[in-house]
Amino acid sequence: MDKKIIKGNFIFSKNLNNLSFLENTHLLINDGKILDIFKEVPTKYKNLNILDFKNKIIIPPFVDLHLHAPQYAMRGLGMDKELLDWLNTYTFKEENKFKDIGYAKRIYNEFAKDLIKHGTLRAVIFATIHKKSTEILFEVLEKYGLETYVGKVNMDRNCPEFLKENTEKSLKETEELILNYKNNKKSKPIITPRFAPTSTQKLLKGLGELAIKYNIPIQSHLSENQKEVKWVKELYNHNYSEVYNENNLFGQTPTLMAHCIYLTKKGIELMKNNRVIAVHCPQSNVNLASGIMPVRTLLNEGLNIGLGSDIGAGHSIAIKRSMVMAIELSKLIYKDNKNLKPLSTEEVFFMATKGSDFFGKIGEFNVDFSFDALIIDDSNLGTTELTLKERLQRFIYIGDDRNIIKRYLNGKEINF
Amino acid sequence: MDKKIIKGNFIFSKNLNNLSFLENTHLLINDGKILDIFKEVPTKYKNLNILDFKNKIIIPPFVDLHLHAPQYAMRGLGMDKELLDWLNTYTFKEENKFKDIGYAKRIYNEFAKDLIKHGTLRAVIFATIHKKSTEILFEVLEKYGLETYVGKVNMDRNCPEFLKENTEKSLKETEELILNYKNNKKSKPIITPRFAPTSTQKLLKGLGELAIKYNIPIQSHLSENQKEVKWVKELYNHNYSEVYNENNLFGQTPTLMAHCIYLTKKGIELMKNNRVIAVHCPQSNVNLASGIMPVRTLLNEGLNIGLGSDIGAGHSIAIKRSMVMAIELSKLIYKDNKNLKPLSTEEVFFMATKGSDFFGKIGEFNVDFSFDALIIDDSNLGTTELTLKERLQRFIYIGDDRNIIKRYLNGKEINF
Repeated sequence: MDKKIIKGNFIFSKNLNNLSFLENTHLLINDGKILDIFKEVPTKYKNLNILDFKNKIIIPPFVDLHLHAPQYAMRGLGMDKELLDWLNTYTFKEENKFKDIGYAKRIYNEFAKDLIKHGTLRAVIFATIHKKSTEILFEVLEKYGLETYVGKVNMDRNCPEFLKENTEKSLKETEELILNYKNNKKSKPIITPRFAPTSTQKLLKGLGELAIKYNIPIQSHLSENQKEVKWVKELYNHNYSEVYNENNLFGQTPTLMAHCIYLTKKGIELMKNNRVIAVHCPQSNVNLASGIMPVRTLLNEGLNIGLGSDIGAGHSIAIKRSMVMAIELSKLIYKDNKNLKPLSTEEVFFMATKGSDFFGKIGEFNVDFSFDALIIDDSNLGTTELTLKERLQRFIYIGDDRNIIKRYLNGKEINF
Repeated sequence: MDKKIIKGNFIFSKNLNNLSFLENTHLLINDGKILDIFKEVPTKYKNLNILDFKNKIIIPPFVDLHLHAPQYAMRGLGMDKELLDWLNTYTFKEENKFKDIGYAKRIYNEFAKDLIKHGTLRAVIFATIHKKSTEILFEVLEKYGLETYVGKVNMDRNCPEFLKENTEKSLKETEELILNYKNNKKSKPIITPRFAPTSTQKLLKGLGELAIKYNIPIQSHLSENQKEVKWVKELYNHNYSEVYNENNLFGQTPTLMAHCIYLTKKGIELMKNNRVIAVHCPQSNVNLASGIMPVRTLLNEGLNIGLGSDIGAGHSIAIKRSMVMAIELSKLIYKDNKNLKPLSTEEVFFMATKGSDFFGKIGEFNVDFSFDALIIDDSNLGTTELTLKERLQRFIYIGDDRNIIKRYLNGKEINF
């Protein structure tokens, strides 16, 4: 049997408000799953090898619920623009390069390696409109063993001609990708209209039909920017959330909506009733001067919230950095409204490692969970004579990819 | 003679609004100063060795105008508190450890090395109240060849007993340190009342007298937090800036004031008239939920502004990170007031490399300037087929200490 024992200091979230700590504990791993947990190894397992990580800390891998793989190569560029300008001046030009599958191969490999390096082993990813380079992205991610959802972008209006799709072709290619990849174990398809303003009504309707026909999840952008919200109103004469909802793109299958800064009361209600997950992308939101997601308010309303690096509007692929920024922005809200408590380390860690269960029940060092882990060596960050919580907090604030010395997904080591 | 030629792509600021680029250019360095600049090496220098950095980019080192060396070891801890709570729960306890000179030696060495690693070769630093460990800090910084100002902290009320100084002793020790170090070439003394609330009137008066007697610069904190501003009003029944000003601690000698978030109109006027430099510490300001310095407004008013990491309330010692955060926070202000333009890459680069001339005329690759430089290898950040400005911007946003491959101050390589 494929049994092994891993020993260390495990930290994980069971819920939004509490961290769990297993100090100097042994996990028995069988076929990639946690079979048992014990302080002392029982006699019957004495013959098994123990992989002992000693004083290191072990946490679940990070989950990135929103990022654009084709924007990887433009990280840190064009940061002096707002959303719509930034799209037109920089982003669309870069995405157009992905008609070249050689370019796609090179950038997507670098992208996947960098995700792994930074401990993000599960991610939900926008590709471009290009079917072939989307296939390459599937293959690259599969090769590295990451668990992902990958969406070919759909976009058939209000964008440069060179990225504007024919509606029928867009739907047909999306369906082909669904059929090709829906039975994948690791990298699966997700329906990905870029956002309402770059989609015709017909495209949205067709995508919603595909979502239901094949039971495929959905990702898009929602209420990121005040101009954009106004624009959607002009285009559809309707509430932004309702535009998606009426086309079966809002929780009819599992749905992620990035940003959610300017939701109406009705929009919040709809997200909650339809169990749509809001993805907070704090770095992107400040870089594009979009605003601050009212995370505490949305949590109080009972929404599920995850985190996204939103590469390339967010510049850092490290989810750790989004965690810190989420806390920081929540403090700016708190400063002016003492009823809206800042986010805690516990809360952002929960968001960053559980990913609102979009990937199922993950992120715990508990029996029946798959063994997914990052081994953190924090010895260069200062004394380790701290509580495990303090060491975790310090790693999140001042550590970097160099502190992550091993990565596991379903019991297998992931390398880059 | 000690002449050498350095070749590369040089980027620097001459003023707030423009970057200067010297592509594939040779600098002739003599005794640590730039003697000449040329595209092609003239015949008379053909015999000199050329240190050719090829396609790399070369920028001036960073200047950190506000940070606390004794808080280095607590970076990333206690980030769930506001200023006054954070001081009492975490900071004062950590600073108390510096009565132990063994501890001081260890931490101050780590601190100095980390500054160098991140390209900060000039810094203005708070020590603790302890004279002996302040001397150690002077020695460590001198050993590594950094240019700094170091201040023994003065604090004689409203703090824990274990850090409360006797006023006379505080002044006496400060004077002794001034006499010992004022003729240093590299690390010089600076007068450092922690801030008005932890100083008696008598202490402030005495420190102002020392500043004038020995012509020593001054650093402190000003208007960081709304509670603090109110507290100063209660203690002194006076405007915060005036408290310093009336004690000759506000521009009577060169003065740095950290934070400056909640300045009154009168306070701004006083800073301007007295040429007091405001130090923006964006990371600290969000971590402690203090607020956002109105940088654009203060620039419009004609104030000089520099940047500070404010270790340990700021968690990252990298000034690059403060530059990005300064831009990001300015975008949050801009979002609600379109008259207050976000800070540009040019502006934050100027702040980060010129340091408001607090160290004199630095930060330019121009004749008669000392040769101070960071050699940046950005080949792992993506294509280098970009403009120099784009490469600079990308390094600032997504690079880290690994991209800095060499550091020079006054023509000498600085190692750690």
